[in-house]
Amino acid sequence: MDHSPGHPHPHPHPQAPGAPVRAGVPEHGRVPKYYMVKTRIAALVEELGEGAVLPTERDLATRYEVARETVRQALRELILEGRLRRQGRGTVVAGPKLEQPLSLASYTEGVRLQGHTPGRRLVSLERVPCTPALAAATGAAEGEPVWHMERVLLADDERVGLESTYVSVARAPALDGDFDPDSSFYAYLRERLGVSFGEADERIETVLATPREALLIGTPPALPMLLLHRASKDADGRPLERVRTLFRGDRFSFTARLDGGKR
Amino acid sequence: MDHSPGHPHPHPHPQAPGAPVRAGVPEHGRVPKYYMVKTRIAALVEELGEGAVLPTERDLATRYEVARETVRQALRELILEGRLRRQGRGTVVAGPKLEQPLSLASYTEGVRLQGHTPGRRLVSLERVPCTPALAAATGAAEGEPVWHMERVLLADDERVGLESTYVSVARAPALDGDFDPDSSFYAYLRERLGVSFGEADERIETVLATPREALLIGTPPALPMLLLHRASKDADGRPLERVRTLFRGDRFSFTARLDGGKR
Repeated sequence: MDHSPGHPHPHPHPQAPGAPVRAGVPEHGRVPKYYMVKTRIAALVEELGEGAVLPTERDLATRYEVARETVRQALRELILEGRLRRQGRGTVVAGPKLEQPLSLASYTEGVRLQGHTPGRRLVSLERVPCTPALAAATGAAEGEPVWHMERVLLADDERVGLESTYVSVARAPALDGDFDPDSSFYAYLRERLGVSFGEADERIETVLATPREALLIGTPPALPMLLLHRASKDADGRPLERVRTLFRGDRFSFTARLDGGKR
Repeated sequence: MDHSPGHPHPHPHPQAPGAPVRAGVPEHGRVPKYYMVKTRIAALVEELGEGAVLPTERDLATRYEVARETVRQALRELILEGRLRRQGRGTVVAGPKLEQPLSLASYTEGVRLQGHTPGRRLVSLERVPCTPALAAATGAAEGEPVWHMERVLLADDERVGLESTYVSVARAPALDGDFDPDSSFYAYLRERLGVSFGEADERIETVLATPREALLIGTPPALPMLLLHRASKDADGRPLERVRTLFRGDRFSFTARLDGGKR
């Protein structure tokens, strides 16, 4: 279909014209029934507000005059998107996603800045022999010992992510002795070991959790996740660490400030 | 389970020790059968290389001695993750995700830098009345006309994203006349209208596509997507535009350079 720039094509938005929403209804073709119900439940969610308990599936099916399975499909998506959350046997309106700045500030600082309570729980800490892939990222030679530290990340006592850090044992020889795994590893590097951060390259993608990750974080298999890959250097430009952090896609988003002057 | 830092907990990795992979197999509990098959197909994918045609479902079911439905589930996830792609009646090994820098460089420049061919296709261009939400982002007063421009993004002739831009008509009065919608809007602003970019705030999250978006981009409903929200200002600090861009999560990742000095 041709939309010449000289002929604007007005298409109806399901809400007020110009409302900056993602228009969900295809202009052409059938609107899936569950999606109509989902839109109406989303509007209800807006009215009810964070923490409110949603009517039961049966009540919603009656209210919107659809089958319970249709309501279930709508609820499933709203849960995957983080707008609803299961609480006990009911469903409540969730709060907005956390907005974590993409910066070298630690996870802890980012969560606190938003008024939430961060936490970490150690899954494992082990020495592994450095592989060719890890050598470039950690500065260790192949075969030399590298720490692999894995921690579950918490916000307000809820598991929200899984962080996997590789750093050479030479950089942090006593990591298994004098580091509190609940605390910020970056603070430890800075304050205990005098390591200053230089630059880091970060890559973000969306993935599904592996069965192990889903088990550790406690997420349903179909939940889209955000996976961050970071390679950090110290202030002298030497490779320092590689970190891979997986976040619940229904709880987190990431923000960055882009500078026009740096183009 | 307590993992004291002094007692490293060695857990078996499915690959060479220390290989920086996301360990998929839960240490405790059953490994789903489809996941074992998925891991083996993923290894096969590595051997075959980009563009290679995968053996048929039947051949794979025979090779791994599982039901065809188990193979199908494994393939479904590998397709959602972007490691395989459907081509005609077969399945081929996909290339790596594009790595688009998070910067004010346009989509076009980012894709070209990676050796791919960018494209855009106009979906709609219309004037809408400015809402309170859009006023802050565009600098228009409530009720004044704002452009809403929607374009499908292409890479190598494949639809990969959907870009939705709001900018005040006052800023770009002839947008429906002298702007080639296949081209970079940023280049148009700079070169034709003399607008210099200042800062922009960007937010990234993962979502599922709405039915309309899935139709426009041509994606399956369960595919995790990346949604970028941008609010840009000009070099004088005045609000310029709001853009929402939805990308296929199996084709795109985003990169950023983080500076330790700016903490």
